[in-house]
Amino acid sequence: MTTKPKRIERVVALSKLLADHPYRLFSFSYFCKKFDIAKSTLSEDVMAVKSGMELYGLGKIETMSGAAGGVRFVPCHLPEDDEAFLQELAVRLAAPERILPGGMLYTTDILCNPETVVRLGEILMMRLAELAPDCIMTVETSGIPLALQVARAFNIPLVIARHTSDITEGSTVNINYVSGSTKAIQNMAMPKRALKPDSRVLIIDDVMKGGGTASGMIALAHEVGAKVVGKAFLIATAEPQRKLVEDYTAIFTLHNVDEENQIVHVDINK
Amino acid sequence: MTTKPKRIERVVALSKLLADHPYRLFSFSYFCKKFDIAKSTLSEDVMAVKSGMELYGLGKIETMSGAAGGVRFVPCHLPEDDEAFLQELAVRLAAPERILPGGMLYTTDILCNPETVVRLGEILMMRLAELAPDCIMTVETSGIPLALQVARAFNIPLVIARHTSDITEGSTVNINYVSGSTKAIQNMAMPKRALKPDSRVLIIDDVMKGGGTASGMIALAHEVGAKVVGKAFLIATAEPQRKLVEDYTAIFTLHNVDEENQIVHVDINK
Repeated sequence: MTTKPKRIERVVALSKLLADHPYRLFSFSYFCKKFDIAKSTLSEDVMAVKSGMELYGLGKIETMSGAAGGVRFVPCHLPEDDEAFLQELAVRLAAPERILPGGMLYTTDILCNPETVVRLGEILMMRLAELAPDCIMTVETSGIPLALQVARAFNIPLVIARHTSDITEGSTVNINYVSGSTKAIQNMAMPKRALKPDSRVLIIDDVMKGGGTASGMIALAHEVGAKVVGKAFLIATAEPQRKLVEDYTAIFTLHNVDEENQIVHVDINK
Repeated sequence: MTTKPKRIERVVALSKLLADHPYRLFSFSYFCKKFDIAKSTLSEDVMAVKSGMELYGLGKIETMSGAAGGVRFVPCHLPEDDEAFLQELAVRLAAPERILPGGMLYTTDILCNPETVVRLGEILMMRLAELAPDCIMTVETSGIPLALQVARAFNIPLVIARHTSDITEGSTVNINYVSGSTKAIQNMAMPKRALKPDSRVLIIDDVMKGGGTASGMIALAHEVGAKVVGKAFLIATAEPQRKLVEDYTAIFTLHNVDEENQIVHVDINK
């Protein structure tokens, strides 16, 4: 750099660097060195980023003082913005053309739209932040994009379980589980090295009906000595009322899909 | 808002909003209205964001003038930063503990680490930007996180093909294909509605050996009348030299996995 950067340029860079690494605690000295500025100047810059992010509801900046202190970014939005986003999504989910035979909904396009799934990941992260997970777990296939974006919002690794055990992922842990809705026995496997014992696992999937798949993932996590701290889904169906898992979070409840009259009833859970 | 926001707070918000929506062209009037400022003031703010992002190698800001004009963000990094990132990743890939029976590498942890896969997605996007894809395609399972992050960097939808056709995704298009390495016949399916005719499809997967899976995806895309504009992979193996697909991009070439001596030879492609 030939000319000395202006404060405003530094603050743009600081905003971007913090937002690119959610939850990562940067030491003050890291940024002082990077920008070649004094700690008092950095403090002012951090306050500007904090105030800009919060004023427009684009995220939180948390600062911690002391030797182990620093600054970090938590991706979140204004509650009213999240609500408007979910209201709009509920309308899209209830579109009759999404009805599939058997009373399920086609949601692939929503879960595979980057902006939508990034936002859903941030919404689930905010609702579940107090669980302090250190890894996200899902099972192939349709839940993977959402699970990755929850992992991205927490900035923790994702673990993907599979339905086949002939996977090229080294030695695996395998379990059998019973599907909550179809009662069919299925297999689930994950690489042994993917999950450390004592990990705090948050299970994420797109849809939960009977809860069989989720309870399979719980069994798989327990098999390696990990702790399941929570279960969350984009959609939980209202029926069956009795699920194989308890204490879960679902953004939407799918009450009824009336195939004959082409009516879908979706509720947003707070 | 009770007090009038300062310029620096507005510029923080502008940086975040642009970066959250890569490639989205925001009209100048959108931001003038949002921030309640004149176009000349917005122009100065945009220049500050552009200059801050570019000075620190955190992305490009492109402005287009005229009635259909506006401003957009393209996520990218300094070439030397990307090179350092890939050098470090090459060292991690070559670690002997990654060697799996059969001469493959365990890469799941790398592809399921959010910061790593976000960066890889941005690197592939920059290398392939001129192909101007309007959708990304992959096949379950291990390529999905990378494919999603390439889709995120381009801000275009992801389409996930599956190996089973009993999927709950409505009517599907199915093809059979021959695995390039094992010569086994496999099935691949995707929802009919997932891909529009005339789409410009960019195929993304984690590893390409013989190219059978990639050519299966090409066949699936052609089946619905879409155009495949490119194929890209995290890793392509040096052997077999003759692949079933041509003109592909691979970030790394895996030359040799010497199981006996526990030596892995990985090269970075420019």
